[in-house]
Amino acid sequence: MHELVERLWRRIKEDEEVYVSRLKRLLEKSGVSATGEGIEEASSVTRELMDEVGLRTETLSTGGYPAVFGEVREERHGTVLFYNHYDVQPPDPLELWESPPFSPSVRTGRVFARGAADNKGNLVARLCAVEAVREVAGELPVNVKFLAEGEEEIGSPNLPNLVRSHGYLLEADACLWEMSYIDDRDRPVIALGVKGLVYLELVARRRGGDLHSSWGAVSVNPAWRLMGALSLIADVAGSPKLAEFNEDIDLDPKFLKLIEESDYDFREIEEGAGELIPTVRGDVREALKRLTMMPVVNVCGIHSGYTGKGSKTVLPSEAFAKVDVRLVPRMRPEKVIESVRRALRAGGYGDIEVRQLGGSYPAARTAPESPFAEAVTRTAKVAFEKEPVVLPSMQGSGPMYLFTEVLGQPCVLAGVSRRDSKYHAPNENLRIDDYLRGIFHVSLLMLNFVPMMRWGVMPYR
Amino acid sequence: MHELVERLWRRIKEDEEVYVSRLKRLLEKSGVSATGEGIEEASSVTRELMDEVGLRTETLSTGGYPAVFGEVREERHGTVLFYNHYDVQPPDPLELWESPPFSPSVRTGRVFARGAADNKGNLVARLCAVEAVREVAGELPVNVKFLAEGEEEIGSPNLPNLVRSHGYLLEADACLWEMSYIDDRDRPVIALGVKGLVYLELVARRRGGDLHSSWGAVSVNPAWRLMGALSLIADVAGSPKLAEFNEDIDLDPKFLKLIEESDYDFREIEEGAGELIPTVRGDVREALKRLTMMPVVNVCGIHSGYTGKGSKTVLPSEAFAKVDVRLVPRMRPEKVIESVRRALRAGGYGDIEVRQLGGSYPAARTAPESPFAEAVTRTAKVAFEKEPVVLPSMQGSGPMYLFTEVLGQPCVLAGVSRRDSKYHAPNENLRIDDYLRGIFHVSLLMLNFVPMMRWGVMPYR
Repeated sequence: MHELVERLWRRIKEDEEVYVSRLKRLLEKSGVSATGEGIEEASSVTRELMDEVGLRTETLSTGGYPAVFGEVREERHGTVLFYNHYDVQPPDPLELWESPPFSPSVRTGRVFARGAADNKGNLVARLCAVEAVREVAGELPVNVKFLAEGEEEIGSPNLPNLVRSHGYLLEADACLWEMSYIDDRDRPVIALGVKGLVYLELVARRRGGDLHSSWGAVSVNPAWRLMGALSLIADVAGSPKLAEFNEDIDLDPKFLKLIEESDYDFREIEEGAGELIPTVRGDVREALKRLTMMPVVNVCGIHSGYTGKGSKTVLPSEAFAKVDVRLVPRMRPEKVIESVRRALRAGGYGDIEVRQLGGSYPAARTAPESPFAEAVTRTAKVAFEKEPVVLPSMQGSGPMYLFTEVLGQPCVLAGVSRRDSKYHAPNENLRIDDYLRGIFHVSLLMLNFVPMMRWGVMPYR
Repeated sequence: MHELVERLWRRIKEDEEVYVSRLKRLLEKSGVSATGEGIEEASSVTRELMDEVGLRTETLSTGGYPAVFGEVREERHGTVLFYNHYDVQPPDPLELWESPPFSPSVRTGRVFARGAADNKGNLVARLCAVEAVREVAGELPVNVKFLAEGEEEIGSPNLPNLVRSHGYLLEADACLWEMSYIDDRDRPVIALGVKGLVYLELVARRRGGDLHSSWGAVSVNPAWRLMGALSLIADVAGSPKLAEFNEDIDLDPKFLKLIEESDYDFREIEEGAGELIPTVRGDVREALKRLTMMPVVNVCGIHSGYTGKGSKTVLPSEAFAKVDVRLVPRMRPEKVIESVRRALRAGGYGDIEVRQLGGSYPAARTAPESPFAEAVTRTAKVAFEKEPVVLPSMQGSGPMYLFTEVLGQPCVLAGVSRRDSKYHAPNENLRIDDYLRGIFHVSLLMLNFVPMMRWGVMPYR
């Protein structure tokens, strides 16, 4: 191990208390974007922490909750951008928390608080890395930029405008996305992208109000028609039936190879899914392919007619379904929506309303051979002392295309939470050892960024 | 016109006030079986009215709300049974009533009150006929029996036991069912049966709770599976796909002929249905065939996942649907349920729970050439001065099989409500002219019953 790297890791372990107390300061400020509670305080502390580690900071108006920006601009040869968020999910149900969600509590080597894993732990680890590198190396051999937004948990409604209007400020050679996770065998999981998302509501109606169900013999039943329409879009496993969806699937062999080589623990998928669709049972590769490289149509909700206790013989006058489509690269949200509409028209369901809910965005993906993917992966291997698992994409979605497509940056996900971090749930927590290794990882990334991006060499390891 | 018939009709018109005030007395007592409100009073007044017209009466315990029985047993050669009910639907929404639902109000030649059409108007008209015949003819040339139950609007849960345990009391040569209607061209509609009913709830589940919707790539989605299962049972028009359903359809030419000859007004179907399925548009015969002779699967309700405002990316853990199946003769409820279960198992949906809600019963039908059908139809023609429309069945269902199958009686529907009677809705009403003609019709039926049933002749017309 390089002497500087050894010193770095020793120093990080010695400064555990400083790093943990910094995280706790941010965790004490709620920042619930769904309600607005504590947003002001959480954004202020975020900026304070950025100031503390020596960034030039700025609060950016977005039209919604502010974003906090920080940077060190000293090194001409390379810039890395960190995308994170200071807002959190609501803490309900409160009664299930063993310690209050906004009074961070350290127990069994973990910090418990709302946001510990998603995403304040990742944000503060990255900020602490700036300080750690400067302390050990004397200077920061890379420009760093931090963007911490306050609306991620409500779908980043103002991020598209923010990114488009602040292109110069956010300019960088690469972007490290908010988070990924560490698997049950302590291997850091590096994901090379996210899926895109389109959220649709389909509404089928009949003229007139609810009728006695005996009219079902001759009268249009919107529930039947809605089901008929949905069955044109996908099969019962959620696999799209529309040619326009499937022609945009790109099973690039170099991404498939990642899945082949991942040695992923099938049990993690099985336990996550609760109950697997038949085609992936016992087949970890097929499961990972669907999770990371295949589009999926999911029914989030459906409702029609009488759904109370017992029986009521009624012919409903309306039926609706909420459906999300997880997109893979090359699928465009506009085309997806138009394909659905066209398929419904062709199938005789042109009267069914198809409306988009929330923001839609395409997928984003960075090639495994890109220097930044290499840099993140190889530094992770040093920091976590395990061969990382590299996946084509996270199974989830995010507006990463703003960074890859709009700003033209390679973008990769890495982070410090676990399957048992319980994000979005009571007793959210972060293991302190993971947190420290996360600081180590990002420090190594900063140290090696310019040589790896420019010459493909990794001096500090 | 026979002199006695002329006197009868004159007498009925003269006694309008007596007949209307009798109806109003019953309408003043609510008798809402869904809540139990006023059941005691309504059953008491029902018995009082039976006493008043000279029946021997009896209140029958059912285990639920009581049934009221009344009879005249003088004539050895024939007995006609009248099945009615004194209970009503709840009056909500109250604010839409122009006069209070249980303060009967006479306006524009109609009586407005909950139950005026369904079913108190029919019940009281039939009772008044006993008196009218006796007054005009001096005696009742037929035995009559009345069964007025108090649980029809909640699905007659205790009627099967009541009928089975009171076979001797209810013995008769024929039964006139609670009601039918008069069409927009003032023609009485005589129906020769009712459809059967099976009400099912299907529940699809996944192990584990709700998940983030990105798991839809590999995890079972109960909403998709429920839709897949339902699509095995019927098409989007509600036509069964199961061979076991369709092999029991009986398109008996003599019933089809009724449809051919009915000269039914298509507009009535169109307006009733709100919006017609494509295959019956412009085709009154096909519409009537489906309404009266074809089984139909109707989705009464369906629910899964998130159905609130806006978007939520969730993979639901459960989905359920409430479905009614309208049966035609030869279809047996037990076979229908078993066919559904078998089809789901064969289609890979054996884990979807299929449970029966409420009581199920088969259809019932009486042949058009049966003497009782002839008697009801021909007397209706005299009373309403229009050629009646005879249909194979009502589109709705009812436990008529108890009378046709269990008691072995031919059973026919006739009555005095209209499309605009608004039963089950605010401002329910009955036209007084229809009410008087209903008394006339049933009086003629009583006068002609024995000669028509025994010798096929109709002396009083």
